[in-house]
Amino acid sequence: MSCKYTALLQSVLLATLRRPPTPRPRACGAARRTSFSRCSSLRAGSSSAAAHGRFTLRTHSCGELRTAHLGEEVTLCGWVQYVRQDLFVILRDFSGLTQILIPQDESRLVLKKTLCDLPLESVIMVRGKVRRRPEGQENKAILTGEIEVHANNVEVLNICQKLPFEIKDFVKKSEGLRMQYRYLDLRSSQMQYNLRLRSRLVMKMREYLCNLHGFVDVETPTLFKRTPGGAKEFVVPSGEPGRFYSLPQSPQQFKQLLMVAGIDRYFQLARCYRDEGSKPDRQPEFTQVDIEMSFTDQAGIRDLVEGLLQYSWPEEKGFVSPPFPVMTYEEAMRDYGVDKPDTRFEMKLVDISGAFHNTQIQFLREALHQPGGSIQAICVPQGAVSSTHMHFSFSHLPSDNFGADGTLKSPLSRLLPDVSRQQLLQMVGAEPGDLILLTAGTEGRRPLLGRLRLQCADLLEGHSVKVRDPSAFHFLWVVDFPLFLPKEDSPEQLESAHHPFTAPVPEDAHLLYSQPHKVRGQHYDLVLNGSEIGGGSIRIHSASEQRHVLDTVLQEDPSLLSHLLEALDSGAPPHGGIALGLDRLLAIIVGASSIRDVIAFPKSFRGHDLMSHAPDFVSEEDLRPYHIKVTWPEGLTPGGEDQ
Amino acid sequence: MSCKYTALLQSVLLATLRRPPTPRPRACGAARRTSFSRCSSLRAGSSSAAAHGRFTLRTHSCGELRTAHLGEEVTLCGWVQYVRQDLFVILRDFSGLTQILIPQDESRLVLKKTLCDLPLESVIMVRGKVRRRPEGQENKAILTGEIEVHANNVEVLNICQKLPFEIKDFVKKSEGLRMQYRYLDLRSSQMQYNLRLRSRLVMKMREYLCNLHGFVDVETPTLFKRTPGGAKEFVVPSGEPGRFYSLPQSPQQFKQLLMVAGIDRYFQLARCYRDEGSKPDRQPEFTQVDIEMSFTDQAGIRDLVEGLLQYSWPEEKGFVSPPFPVMTYEEAMRDYGVDKPDTRFEMKLVDISGAFHNTQIQFLREALHQPGGSIQAICVPQGAVSSTHMHFSFSHLPSDNFGADGTLKSPLSRLLPDVSRQQLLQMVGAEPGDLILLTAGTEGRRPLLGRLRLQCADLLEGHSVKVRDPSAFHFLWVVDFPLFLPKEDSPEQLESAHHPFTAPVPEDAHLLYSQPHKVRGQHYDLVLNGSEIGGGSIRIHSASEQRHVLDTVLQEDPSLLSHLLEALDSGAPPHGGIALGLDRLLAIIVGASSIRDVIAFPKSFRGHDLMSHAPDFVSEEDLRPYHIKVTWPEGLTPGGEDQ
Repeated sequence: MSCKYTALLQSVLLATLRRPPTPRPRACGAARRTSFSRCSSLRAGSSSAAAHGRFTLRTHSCGELRTAHLGEEVTLCGWVQYVRQDLFVILRDFSGLTQILIPQDESRLVLKKTLCDLPLESVIMVRGKVRRRPEGQENKAILTGEIEVHANNVEVLNICQKLPFEIKDFVKKSEGLRMQYRYLDLRSSQMQYNLRLRSRLVMKMREYLCNLHGFVDVETPTLFKRTPGGAKEFVVPSGEPGRFYSLPQSPQQFKQLLMVAGIDRYFQLARCYRDEGSKPDRQPEFTQVDIEMSFTDQAGIRDLVEGLLQYSWPEEKGFVSPPFPVMTYEEAMRDYGVDKPDTRFEMKLVDISGAFHNTQIQFLREALHQPGGSIQAICVPQGAVSSTHMHFSFSHLPSDNFGADGTLKSPLSRLLPDVSRQQLLQMVGAEPGDLILLTAGTEGRRPLLGRLRLQCADLLEGHSVKVRDPSAFHFLWVVDFPLFLPKEDSPEQLESAHHPFTAPVPEDAHLLYSQPHKVRGQHYDLVLNGSEIGGGSIRIHSASEQRHVLDTVLQEDPSLLSHLLEALDSGAPPHGGIALGLDRLLAIIVGASSIRDVIAFPKSFRGHDLMSHAPDFVSEEDLRPYHIKVTWPEGLTPGGEDQ
Repeated sequence: MSCKYTALLQSVLLATLRRPPTPRPRACGAARRTSFSRCSSLRAGSSSAAAHGRFTLRTHSCGELRTAHLGEEVTLCGWVQYVRQDLFVILRDFSGLTQILIPQDESRLVLKKTLCDLPLESVIMVRGKVRRRPEGQENKAILTGEIEVHANNVEVLNICQKLPFEIKDFVKKSEGLRMQYRYLDLRSSQMQYNLRLRSRLVMKMREYLCNLHGFVDVETPTLFKRTPGGAKEFVVPSGEPGRFYSLPQSPQQFKQLLMVAGIDRYFQLARCYRDEGSKPDRQPEFTQVDIEMSFTDQAGIRDLVEGLLQYSWPEEKGFVSPPFPVMTYEEAMRDYGVDKPDTRFEMKLVDISGAFHNTQIQFLREALHQPGGSIQAICVPQGAVSSTHMHFSFSHLPSDNFGADGTLKSPLSRLLPDVSRQQLLQMVGAEPGDLILLTAGTEGRRPLLGRLRLQCADLLEGHSVKVRDPSAFHFLWVVDFPLFLPKEDSPEQLESAHHPFTAPVPEDAHLLYSQPHKVRGQHYDLVLNGSEIGGGSIRIHSASEQRHVLDTVLQEDPSLLSHLLEALDSGAPPHGGIALGLDRLLAIIVGASSIRDVIAFPKSFRGHDLMSHAPDFVSEEDLRPYHIKVTWPEGLTPGGEDQ
């Protein structure tokens, strides 16, 4: 099969998958078990195999036949999608649907009965001749809609027993049922599309990185050493008493070591592990597009990643246009109250302190007199119109309805002098019908207003107000993050905002030794539609700087990373990289509400495989080679459920 | 960078990497720490970046410059390979070497001193002009040998401290040292070649499978449920008391479920896990090229895999010519005494029972009168000549030197009548100077002779007798394996020869219900130069047949695989697949003695990461969330080594 042919096939396939099979099936006669002969005995019959049929028993796929094939003797394999009026079997495979004409003549009664009695989702192989459908019976909704295959032979390959749900896109299944019978759920056209898009996307990424830009695809171990403080790392007992491997959260150390090893450009689709217990919509294992490059800088990585997304972007999802906008962490927090702003819509945070300089309102005065105190607002367009339906969880927030008659309507506004009121309206750019939400306090109130901004967008869209274009993809780089943050439980100590290997911004490097809390890091996040889909940094490549960060700033024991420090002292080049969250990126591209919809066999919310019932109990005997035993909490007994 | 350009770059790169840098370095002056400024400040200087320099601070790589670049101002980044006579720095990166000319004029003394004082393996960025080397000073051994770069600026990016070994191909390092400082070991041209070849090979495999043949790259979970009897599976404790995930030995169940899900053609480079304790040259994690296809048969899979290897084979390693020969298990055992014959040389096993029909020699008579008894031989060409040097561990084997004078020389031959002796020589096709090795007994003696055959080849090659062509690649399919074998510890019970999902050969299917031990399976192994590099099968797709195999033949509890049985009952297509051992395949291609040489960060023989010291001790506190504790064997204490 030539490259050109494949490209054609792929576009055909897509076109078919994006259109769900429409007609409602009718139930067919009572299921009857048909004995089936081995299909391998039929291989001789498919010797005229076209490209599609290569390596298989079929000559063509079910989405492939056109009027160009009229008169050809073909062999199709697939699933019985439905049987219509004892006249037609609609046969489905990965590529589409073909209508099979059931012969009606007396001499073919056995064949007719076999086909009519087939339970839905049974697997058959049909041989027959391609014919043009009678005029007026074409189906423009499917690509094979001009032809049908006149069956002259059928082999029943497998009879389908009663299924827990029908394979129809319009049949709504519970999440639990979908997970338990994942192999049926994956037959839906949406899931077929998602998995095939995933495969296509990563192939394009590989082409871009390996074929066009000299990256080396290197596999790194997943049985590794526990990271100091790696509370979220799964442990794997080894055969040596007390010794454990750890499943790494990312190949961070390995990718840096590969740069020290002179690999120059490393890339891997890396399986990563994170034990986050019961956090919703997190998977214990996930995949990241892991990239590292030597002799580069922030701009170099940004260029590379923008090119990568542009090259691999699915064409049916529009175009990606680099360069992406760049925003500092400070700007993001100031304007959006969050470090991953959804820039598909405005409603930015506005500092309206100026309108309240002389306010007599007690709590506003107090807020303004705090160190770093301010009054912030967002203006929700048409929010007043919809506000009777909007039930905010932040009910303690003062809000102002800017009535359709141009007057402010709230208890608060009555306390404002006219001049302040006008200034306020001007500052937030309010139009009649808008809703203004205010917070007063320190910087820390911004994230609250930021969350409220997103909630307003959701609520407005829930009332059919158009806020965000669902087909738009807004990329954004966020840069200049603080390198260290105060620890939550002991704020006088610092911890890494991301990880201890991030290099400081060059201008701030000297502050590492005097005022580390003021240092900005060379970290960058890639944000898409308000979700963080990637993050990376230029790394520290000087052993002494790395030792200082670990030892003095973070007060960690550097001996735990002695191999990395030694490596930095052995001729480490300047280097940096990024990791893109593949699952999340794909979920956004296909518009899925959960990353589970772009993973073939995901775990449930609680980390369970509902199909095989993993994780499961393991006998004491099976644990013995690993020198571990279970410590049963009170109220639980070995092998049992909750008491 | 265009596709064409990249192809060129890759071939250049290869040509360089295959030729180890030859000249011996001279030690340079005392190491001096040079302060270095941040490289990002120099980005402006490399704005004329050519394709090679894209995203990076350099304009060209160290293997790239030719006379076509004469006069150009370039920026190179790399490692100091050596300094010669205070005149030249040889700079190395992933792509090759460039000679940097050190300016000698008075005004550039600082630059000269900086360069001359650099410890080897320090990392620098050099700017300078490309010049033609003076006549007679060209170095034809390297591709940049006609030019040199006249340095006018250097930036020291990182000073290298004293290394545990030199980065020279001719410097022999102990295995332990190589593993402990893997990031240095990977700088060798052989390891750079191995990792880059691996990346290139898998990219070609992906192109063939995904782009040319419609395979879908699907990632399957590695946190799964323990397989019944999965003694070699690592366990991973979950946060729920007593419940464990398991790291799968292969995605076998998932690939079959994907066929039930209608994916039609699945492919994955799958990470697999096997806890084999201290078995030599096994890695606890390894990678397989995992393939499954619906509506296919053995011939279909063989075609596919032959095409795959042909397409992805590195061109510098010759050509792969399908179709590969096919041999039955029975033929392999009969002719080679092993199920993975090395067909690069003859020395086949010959049944010479016929020559001994009337023998008076007691032990031969007894052997022939056993049920299934026979006398087998191999003839080692020129073995008699070398035999004084050959110390067989099988010293109890009778052997015969066929002397250069054409007479048999051994105690045994004296007991043979003339006619038997002639018959024997004729049967094994012996020439003067050959060595004949015999075994007498049941079928079970064949593997012994098979091992001896390989040992003879090794011994002969140790004495410079050419037996196998080291550049030859002999592929072979072995088919028609028995489906079940008697259990070693209770031979009246059967166990699967490979796994319980293998379908029987159609002609033998009826025997499943009467004489299962006689059934041949639709299993196939792919053998390369005597190593098994892949194995697969056509699977059982009938739930009732699968249930019978599990339940009646193997006497296992089918409820442990209930999800798979349910799936087979839900419209499972006929399907089959294969898994290729990527690490082993690559080791054979590059001629490495261990798969550790084609893995970036392998574990030691004992499963240790000698660089990071994994597996390592984990505190009781860190184990608490997983509800496990260590059961210390007597003589060991928590956190300690052997007492």
